[in-house]
Amino acid sequence: MRWLIAIPILWIGIGSLGVAKTVPVEFHGKEAELTIDNKGTKYLAWTFNGQVPGPLVRVTEGDVVDFTLVNEITNKKSHAMDFHAAQLDAAKDFGQIRPGETKHYSFKANYPGVFFYHCGADPMVQHIARGMFGVIIVDPKDPKAMPKADREYVLVQSEIYSNPDDEKSLMEGKWEFAAFNFCKFKYDPVHDERATTWLQAKPGERVRIYFVNAGPNEFASFHPIAGIWDRVYVGGNPKNVLYGLQSFTVGPGDGAIFDLVSPVEGANAIVTHSMKQALSGAIAIIMFTKDADPKMGRGDQILVR
Amino acid sequence: MRWLIAIPILWIGIGSLGVAKTVPVEFHGKEAELTIDNKGTKYLAWTFNGQVPGPLVRVTEGDVVDFTLVNEITNKKSHAMDFHAAQLDAAKDFGQIRPGETKHYSFKANYPGVFFYHCGADPMVQHIARGMFGVIIVDPKDPKAMPKADREYVLVQSEIYSNPDDEKSLMEGKWEFAAFNFCKFKYDPVHDERATTWLQAKPGERVRIYFVNAGPNEFASFHPIAGIWDRVYVGGNPKNVLYGLQSFTVGPGDGAIFDLVSPVEGANAIVTHSMKQALSGAIAIIMFTKDADPKMGRGDQILVR
Amino acid sequence: MRWLIAIPILWIGIGSLGVAKTVPVEFHGKEAELTIDNKGTKYLAWTFNGQVPGPLVRVTEGDVVDFTLVNEITNKKSHAMDFHAAQLDAAKDFGQIRPGETKHYSFKANYPGVFFYHCGADPMVQHIARGMFGVIIVDPKDPKAMPKADREYVLVQSEIYSNPDDEKSLMEGKWEFAAFNFCKFKYDPVHDERATTWLQAKPGERVRIYFVNAGPNEFASFHPIAGIWDRVYVGGNPKNVLYGLQSFTVGPGDGAIFDLVSPVEGANAIVTHSMKQALSGAIAIIMFTKDADPKMGRGDQILVR
Repeated sequence: MRWLIAIPILWIGIGSLGVAKTVPVEFHGKEAELTIDNKGTKYLAWTFNGQVPGPLVRVTEGDVVDFTLVNEITNKKSHAMDFHAAQLDAAKDFGQIRPGETKHYSFKANYPGVFFYHCGADPMVQHIARGMFGVIIVDPKDPKAMPKADREYVLVQSEIYSNPDDEKSLMEGKWEFAAFNFCKFKYDPVHDERATTWLQAKPGERVRIYFVNAGPNEFASFHPIAGIWDRVYVGGNPKNVLYGLQSFTVGPGDGAIFDLVSPVEGANAIVTHSMKQALSGAIAIIMFTKDADPKMGRGDQILVR
Repeated sequence: MRWLIAIPILWIGIGSLGVAKTVPVEFHGKEAELTIDNKGTKYLAWTFNGQVPGPLVRVTEGDVVDFTLVNEITNKKSHAMDFHAAQLDAAKDFGQIRPGETKHYSFKANYPGVFFYHCGADPMVQHIARGMFGVIIVDPKDPKAMPKADREYVLVQSEIYSNPDDEKSLMEGKWEFAAFNFCKFKYDPVHDERATTWLQAKPGERVRIYFVNAGPNEFASFHPIAGIWDRVYVGGNPKNVLYGLQSFTVGPGDGAIFDLVSPVEGANAIVTHSMKQALSGAIAIIMFTKDADPKMGRGDQILVR
Repeated sequence: MRWLIAIPILWIGIGSLGVAKTVPVEFHGKEAELTIDNKGTKYLAWTFNGQVPGPLVRVTEGDVVDFTLVNEITNKKSHAMDFHAAQLDAAKDFGQIRPGETKHYSFKANYPGVFFYHCGADPMVQHIARGMFGVIIVDPKDPKAMPKADREYVLVQSEIYSNPDDEKSLMEGKWEFAAFNFCKFKYDPVHDERATTWLQAKPGERVRIYFVNAGPNEFASFHPIAGIWDRVYVGGNPKNVLYGLQSFTVGPGDGAIFDLVSPVEGANAIVTHSMKQALSGAIAIIMFTKDADPKMGRGDQILVR
C-alpha cells in the first residue's frame, strides 16, 4: 500500500496550486487473521487490504476520489464501502457486494476534514466491530487554513468484542476492550511492556492528530494526559476551531483534528478519558524528546503500523 | 391539531416584521395506545394530544407562549410540562398536576433554537420513556440569520423500553430499541419493508432537520449516511454554526439544527452512528429525487406522522 | 484550607494588572471516611485534604502553580496528581508516590479554562471513583474576556460505586448513583428533604457555573431545568463561546463554563439530562430570589461544602 501512503505528500504540493485531481483508490476486502494485542492474540478480522485501520486515504478538498472495491473471492461475507467524506446514493453506491464481485464509484471531496470510512454491509455493527474501517483525510484547499503541522498521526478508536459472531453482544455493547488502531495498548509501553512502538515528536513541534472514533457503539472523550489540545478542529474543518481544550467528545462514526504542542520534554498519554475505555486498552504514549526520530509522524509513519 | 401545525407558517411571516406575538398553546395529557413499529405493535404511551412526538410548537424569538396543560380526567397519572425554551420557576410552573386538573403559565421565547419539551412528572424517566415529549422551534427574529431552508423535518430520537413499568430497567438503560419519532424504522423501507413513508427532497435543496434527543438516557451521534451536514447549529442557535460535519453529538435532553444539501439523486440514511441505536430502529431514509413530493418537508409534513 | 480558598480573590485583583505570580499549592492525600448522601451514609473515600471535591485551586492565565503532594504515612495506597491545566511529563510528574512520600512539580497555566484534577495512581478508575479529584480554574488574563459574573459555583459530577474495591464493576460502569460534589442530592431539598443547602442567586444576576465531569466513565448532558444557558464556554476558554443552549455534552475528564441568568424568581434544577444519572442523585437546585444570601456563590461559598 506504499503508493497510497505516498499520496498525501504528493497532494499537499499539488493542492496548494489549486489544481483538483482525480485520485484512484482501490481497496480489496479481505477476511484475515490479525493480532489485536502486543502478545500476539489472533483475531479473525474483516479488513480493507489486510490492515486495520485500512490504508490511509488522503486527498485535497475539491479532488475526486475514483474508488474501486474488490470483494475477494476467498471471502465468506458480502462487503461494502461507506466513505463519510462522500455525498452519494447510500443505496446504490454504498450497497454491499458478494465475494468475487467488484464495485466502483467516484465522488468529489467537497468538505475538508478527517472522515471515517467503513464497511456498511449487513449487519454493519459486526463489520465495524471486526475492523473493516479506516480514515480519509481531506486537506483544506487553502494550505494556510490551519497552522502548519510538524508531525501528524492517525488514531482510530474502536471497541473490540471477544465474540463478534454473537450479534446480540455487539448490539448490547458488551465489548472486551477499547483500542487505538485495533491493538490493545499498541503504543503504550507503560501499560504493556511488550509494546515496541509509540508516537514521537520534539518539544515545541505542532503535532496534529487525526482522530476517528469507529465505535461501533461508544463515545470518546479524547484527552492528552499531561498535555492540553492547543486547537481542536471539530470534524477536522478549519472553520470549526476551538482553543485550549483538555478533552473533546467525539461520537462513534465521527472524527476531529487535535493539535498538541508540548513546551517540555517528556511523555503525554493520549486516552479517551472514559476510564473503562482507556484502562482496557485505549492509551497511546507520545514521547517529546529533542532527539525524536525524524521519520515518525511523517510519510508512511503517520499511521504507525 | 391542525391549528397548531399551522402556526409556523403564520409566524414566519409575522416574525419577519419584528412584531412579537402571544401564541396560545393548549395541550391535553392523554394516556393512549399507540403503534411503535410498522407492523402495528401496540404500546401504552403517555402523550400530549394523543401523539408522540406531541404537536410541533413553533414561534419566533421574542414571542410569548401562553400555555395551558389539561391532565384529562380519564388518565391515571399526574403529568406536567417542561419546555426547554422557557425560563421559569421549575417548582411552580413545571410542577405536576393530577388527572382532571389544569395548569397555565406563559413564557417569552428569549433564545432561538430547537428545544425539547417533555413531561416532568415523577418519575421523569418513565414519563419520557413512555413518549410524553415533543419539540418547540423558536425561529430567530432575523429571518436572514440562517440560509433559507427549502424543506424542513423534525426528528426526535428516543429509546423505547419494553417494560416501562419497571422503573429499575429504565434507570439501568435497558431499552429494547431506539427510534425516530417513536416508531421503529418509521421512515426506513430499506430495513423494514412495511414502512410506508420516508423523507423527501430534491437534489440541491437545503433540507433543515430539527433534531431533538429525548433520551431518556442515551447520547446520539447524528449522521447522514452518504451525506455530510453542510451546517450544524449547536442548540439550533444561528450564532453557533459549525461547517461540514459527518456527525455531531447531541446528548439526551438536547437538540440541534442540521442542514443537508445533496448534490446528487439518491438516498441518504439518517442515523445515530452508535450502531446499537441505529440498527435497532433509529434510521430514517431521505430520498433526493427531482420529482420529490412538493408537500413533504413543508406545512403539516414537517413532522411526518 | 482557608488560604487556598482565598487565592481567587487575591489573584483576580493581581491578574488584572497582568502580573503573573507563582502560587504555592500543597495537597495531602488522605484516605478518609466521608458521607455521600444527606442521611449520612459513610464511604471510604480517597481524598485530597480530606475533601471531595478537593480544594478549589484558582489562578490566572500565565501564573505558575508550585505544587507539592504529600501522601500521608497513614494511607494504604500510592497516590498521584494529574492536573489537566498542566503541560508536563506524564511519567515523571504525574507518577505515583507511596505513603510517606512527597512529590513536587510546578507548571505554568498557559490556557484559561476550568480543568479537572485527579489522582492518576493505578488503577486510575478506582482513584477517581473513590473521590480523589477536584477543580482548578484558570481565569483569563484579560478580565474583560467574559462578562463579569455576579455569582460563581463549582459543580463536579461523578458516579459513585457501591463496591469500589471491585475493579471489574468499575470497568463495567456499574455505578450506584451519580452525584454533584460527591453527595447524592446534596443541593436538592426537592428530591431529598434532608438536604440542608442549595445554590442561590438573584434574578438578573449572571451565575457562572464551573462544571467538571469527573466520570470515571459517564458522559454528562448538562442542563438547567426551567432555565437556558445564556453562554457556554467550551473547556472554559473565553474564545470558545456558544449562545443560548438548553444542554451541552461534557465528557468524563472534561469541563466547561455555563452562564445562567434567570429573568424571574423561582427555582432552576441543574441536572445531567441522562435521566439515570439525574434521578439517581445528580440534581442541584438553584433558587433565584431577591433576598438571596449575599455570601452564596462568593468567597468560600463558590464550592459549597
